[in-house]
Amino acid sequence: MAYRETPRMRARKEATRQRILDTTQSLVASGGFGAASVARVAEESGVAIGSVYRHFESKSDLFAEVFRHATEVEVKRVGEALNTTGPADEALAKALEVFARRAIRSPTMAWALIAEPVDPLVDEERLRYRQAYAELFEQTLVRGIREGCFRPDQNPKLSSAATVGAIAEALVGPLSPAADGLDREKADQLIHDVVRLCLQAVRAPGGQQQ
Amino acid sequence: MAYRETPRMRARKEATRQRILDTTQSLVASGGFGAASVARVAEESGVAIGSVYRHFESKSDLFAEVFRHATEVEVKRVGEALNTTGPADEALAKALEVFARRAIRSPTMAWALIAEPVDPLVDEERLRYRQAYAELFEQTLVRGIREGCFRPDQNPKLSSAATVGAIAEALVGPLSPAADGLDREKADQLIHDVVRLCLQAVRAPGGQQQ
Repeated sequence: MAYRETPRMRARKEATRQRILDTTQSLVASGGFGAASVARVAEESGVAIGSVYRHFESKSDLFAEVFRHATEVEVKRVGEALNTTGPADEALAKALEVFARRAIRSPTMAWALIAEPVDPLVDEERLRYRQAYAELFEQTLVRGIREGCFRPDQNPKLSSAATVGAIAEALVGPLSPAADGLDREKADQLIHDVVRLCLQAVRAPGGQQQ
Repeated sequence: MAYRETPRMRARKEATRQRILDTTQSLVASGGFGAASVARVAEESGVAIGSVYRHFESKSDLFAEVFRHATEVEVKRVGEALNTTGPADEALAKALEVFARRAIRSPTMAWALIAEPVDPLVDEERLRYRQAYAELFEQTLVRGIREGCFRPDQNPKLSSAATVGAIAEALVGPLSPAADGLDREKADQLIHDVVRLCLQAVRAPGGQQQ
C-alpha cells in the first residue's frame, strides 16, 4: 500500500514548518541572519536539526523564505501608504516615511533585509524586493507627473529605482549594528531629511517644499 | 636546513597569483562572477585547480580580491572627477557622469560589482565600496554647501549615501543581463536623467538646472 499522509499528519507538518519560519524570523529580528544558525533555529523551534532540513532544502532556502515573508509585509505597508487619497507628492512622502519609520523601529531586521551580507539566494530576493518597491513608486511618479507635482522631464522608471536606492542606502549607515542607537529626535530628523531629499529629486520646479 | 624561498621563486609565485587574478577579472567582465568557476579560472590561467587554492584560500577570497581591485579603479576615477577645479555642483555632476558612463561601457562588470548575487564576502566588500564613494561625495557636498550651490539644510552624510544608492540602483535595471543593450543615444539620455535627478536632490533652491 502506498504511503498516504493523513490530514492530521499534514497539519502537524505544516505547523512545524511554520514554527521553524517564525523562530528564524525572530532570531533575524534580534541578531540578523548571522544569529540564525540551523542549530539555534532547531533548538528554539524544539525540533532536531535534521527536521529543519526535512522542511527546507538548505539554510539558504530557509533564509530566502524568511526574507520573502518579512519583505512582503514591508512592501504591503508602503503600497498602502501610496494608495491613500491626496496628491501624489504627499503619497510618496508618506510612503517613504512609513518605510523609514518601520526600518528604524526594527533596526536589526531592517539592516538584515537591506544590507546584511548573507547568501546569494537572499541577494536574489533582495533584487526582487527592490524591484517591487520601484514598481510601486513608479505608479505614483507617473500619477504625480500627470498631476503636475513631479517634473515631466524625468524617466519614471529610472527615478523610482533611484528613490529605492536612495532611501535604502541612506538608512544603511544609521541602521548598521556598528551605529549608535537613534533617539526619537534624531530618528525624526533622519526621516525628515531623507524624505525631503527624495521628494526634491523628483518634484516639479516651484513645487511645494516639505 | 629550513626551506628558503629564493627571489626567483617568489617572483614566479607572484606572477602566477597575478595571472589568476587577471584571468578571473576578465571572466567576470565578460560573464559576471557566475562565469568564473575555479575550473575555468585554472584552465584559462594555465594552472591546475589545486594551484588556484594554493594562492587563494577559497573562491570567495579570490572574488573578494578581484572585487577590491576592480572597484579601486572605479573609486579612483570618481575621486579624480570630484577633484577637478570649478564649483562643487559641476564636480558632482562630472563624477556621477564618470561613474555612469564607465558602468555603461562595461555593463557586465558593472552589474557584477553593483548587484550580482555572489557571496557574503563580496557583499562585505560592496558595503565598503559604497562607503568609499559616499565619503568622496560627502566632501564635495560639504564644499558645495559652503559655496552656496547645495542646500544648507541637509545632512551631507545622509545625502551622500543616498546619492550612491540612487545612482547604483538606477543603473541596476539597465545594466542587468536581462536588459536590452543601450545604444549611444539611450545611454546619453540615461546618464543625463540620473545625473540631473541626483543633482536636483541636493541643490539649493534657485540653483542652476542641469
